[in-house]
Amino acid sequence: MKIMRYGDRYGSKIPCVIDADGVARDVSSVVADFNPRTLADGALDKVRAVDTASLPVADVKGKRLAPPVAQPFNIWCVGLNYSDHAAEAGMDIPEEPILFNKATGTYCGPNDDILYSPKMTKLDWEVELGIVIGKPALNIDKADAMDHIAGFVLVNDISERAWQLERSGQWVKGKSFPNFCPTGPVLVTPDEIGDVNNLGMWLDVNGERMQTGNTGTMIFDVETIVSYMSEFTRLEPGDLICTGTPPGVGAGMSPQVWLKQGDKVTLGIDGLGTQTQTVVDL
Amino acid sequence: MKIMRYGDRYGSKIPCVIDADGVARDVSSVVADFNPRTLADGALDKVRAVDTASLPVADVKGKRLAPPVAQPFNIWCVGLNYSDHAAEAGMDIPEEPILFNKATGTYCGPNDDILYSPKMTKLDWEVELGIVIGKPALNIDKADAMDHIAGFVLVNDISERAWQLERSGQWVKGKSFPNFCPTGPVLVTPDEIGDVNNLGMWLDVNGERMQTGNTGTMIFDVETIVSYMSEFTRLEPGDLICTGTPPGVGAGMSPQVWLKQGDKVTLGIDGLGTQTQTVVDL
Repeated sequence: MKIMRYGDRYGSKIPCVIDADGVARDVSSVVADFNPRTLADGALDKVRAVDTASLPVADVKGKRLAPPVAQPFNIWCVGLNYSDHAAEAGMDIPEEPILFNKATGTYCGPNDDILYSPKMTKLDWEVELGIVIGKPALNIDKADAMDHIAGFVLVNDISERAWQLERSGQWVKGKSFPNFCPTGPVLVTPDEIGDVNNLGMWLDVNGERMQTGNTGTMIFDVETIVSYMSEFTRLEPGDLICTGTPPGVGAGMSPQVWLKQGDKVTLGIDGLGTQTQTVVDL
Repeated sequence: MKIMRYGDRYGSKIPCVIDADGVARDVSSVVADFNPRTLADGALDKVRAVDTASLPVADVKGKRLAPPVAQPFNIWCVGLNYSDHAAEAGMDIPEEPILFNKATGTYCGPNDDILYSPKMTKLDWEVELGIVIGKPALNIDKADAMDHIAGFVLVNDISERAWQLERSGQWVKGKSFPNFCPTGPVLVTPDEIGDVNNLGMWLDVNGERMQTGNTGTMIFDVETIVSYMSEFTRLEPGDLICTGTPPGVGAGMSPQVWLKQGDKVTLGIDGLGTQTQTVVDL
């Protein structure tokens, strides 16, 4: 199953399911919205039980796409989870998953603008596979991990490298500006994604290919990440986990390349759709 | 003004204001609850406009105290913000505030149990002054910081030091277990707290004094922290910022001391009340 939502940033959203022909159907008669609370209440099972052909075609044309699930209470990231990206960052391959957070106010629609603050100097991109939690997960085994996952999403884990690496302390400082986490357009459930640990991924800046990768080169795979994290925290419905990025970020180039106003970023992952963002002044 | 809430963990809460005699008055007829959304909608101003003597006395006796504001979308922490605690941790005094996060599922009432997971080995305490944001803050000056603060709370920033420091990467791993952030009992507004940068604070374990400090020895004061953070993220109503801890944590002792099942932790900050937690098996 594939779901999505559309609507203005500060207004109500229309939840949709994508039918077998790829057409968005309005499921607002079945679930009020896709959000942490409704996911916990079985929203996906309710939608799955409906004959999509009976639902009205969604009036999505020309509308703003929202993230496929409303804002979570936690956005987690796994750092340096692609061995070749760790190499380009000049860092060792981690022995255990490195975890950090993005502020939840980073969460935005897949095609919303990237905001350029006057204080930014090293704005960078990262195409990533995102995991959305469906059921609470605390101390769970790897074999059970997939049962706790609502689905998968495309994420651009936008970063300000000077803030992340040159301003003392922890990475969250460079990961948390508004709109630093475009998410969507769709969420695809585990039964429909195929092999989530073998998905091609790419990112272009102004039409030039920057990142090419595959989730198969992740150091820690999806099930390992969810099980591992559940030792340290209780993952909650709606929580988003960004699983790391393959090589080709601006910080890894020689000379380094940073985003500037007017740049257009396009990215995609097999089966999870594409995003396009434009960098604009704050 | 002082506010508080009570009610079971998973049920609805009764919002209260503390009157001039220290009696909790039920304000549920004025605001549905104190949460990120109602704070943004001016809940504190609405309560301030009411004659508290006209409100019913709250039936709080024997009830579970909840955090004074419902769960935020972000819990931030400032690391090593007391120079003498940095020394006991064997770390340099930071040149800029060190920021990290706690998962929001750590948030709980001031007297809720501390949960001991079978995988824990180095469970520790940290009495801290918490800042609760009242209005969005992005790129604000230090002089304006107090206008964006709803109030102040007492927090125990509970930590698992092995997870924080010995499991690769960032500190959030050891800061994010359920119930690791007891908050309350009250929120005190800036106009009532007096000089927030000069408050005594203490923490006992099983009746023995472990931490004694004063917010006056913070390296970065309240206004500096809020202004500084607003460069990197947009602080949102309800967001909690834990501002660091004075010396006397278990990790800083020789030999080191860790919490175990049955231990009782009691802590307080001038004007912000006290908390008592018991360590119990998960």
